[in-house]
Amino acid sequence: MTSTPPSLAPNPSAIEDLLSRIAFGREGLVAAVAQQHDSGEVLMVAWMNREAVRATVAEGQAVYWSRSRMRLWRKGETSGQVQRLVELRIDCDGDALLLRVDQAGVACHTGRRSCFFTALGPSGLLEVLPVEVEPADLYGKDG
Amino acid sequence: MTSTPPSLAPNPSAIEDLLSRIAFGREGLVAAVAQQHDSGEVLMVAWMNREAVRATVAEGQAVYWSRSRMRLWRKGETSGQVQRLVELRIDCDGDALLLRVDQAGVACHTGRRSCFFTALGPSGLLEVLPVEVEPADLYGKDG
Repeated sequence: MTSTPPSLAPNPSAIEDLLSRIAFGREGLVAAVAQQHDSGEVLMVAWMNREAVRATVAEGQAVYWSRSRMRLWRKGETSGQVQRLVELRIDCDGDALLLRVDQAGVACHTGRRSCFFTALGPSGLLEVLPVEVEPADLYGKDG
Repeated sequence: MTSTPPSLAPNPSAIEDLLSRIAFGREGLVAAVAQQHDSGEVLMVAWMNREAVRATVAEGQAVYWSRSRMRLWRKGETSGQVQRLVELRIDCDGDALLLRVDQAGVACHTGRRSCFFTALGPSGLLEVLPVEVEPADLYGKDG
């Protein structure tokens, strides 16, 4: 059902077209879902401001806005676990983006492939994904 | 890499455990990504308050908070395009939920399978998913 992803490297007017369609929220942010483009795994949800969207498209890699650090966050800048952008989509009301990416290694800072590793089970929360890389190996001993 | 989904029908303490882990935002809402459990399609992103999370788990179907209508929104209540809950996950920092669902028909009010039907192409935005059901057939002539 899905067409072949268009190649990226859009021209400037295409990026302006995209930006004009995004319904940024009160804090100037939009939710962005990162999905592994081939397996379909939902890797993480993060936030983007206008500058992060521009940087993501320009650099061909996911760049988010870190709400805790209040700065642009080039995913993988410390850990090397970058997300190469394959396709960027926007939803029907413009308040969410879907980044179809190729995730190097693991998306989660805990060393799991996806940040969604905790499921609601019958008697509590369960961890359903294994740690694939030790966090110390991702970030060094300073964590 | 993913374990078998736990069966739902969690006990009350499990639901409280989940609710205590959710970092609801300023408006008391958390982002929820709906994904078709078997194909991996990302169907939509919507919002939930505490009551919507409880209702989703209790009813075994996705119930969101409609920010435009300011009320609980039982997905499919008008169109019949319900989302049966297969598994509910929370991310590592508790600010997003992943609903693995079985989507009846189409998720988008435009009649497309997913709300993410618009992609950034080289010279502008492109529609990459077809209309599968006419909106008039989903909502009647009043739209």
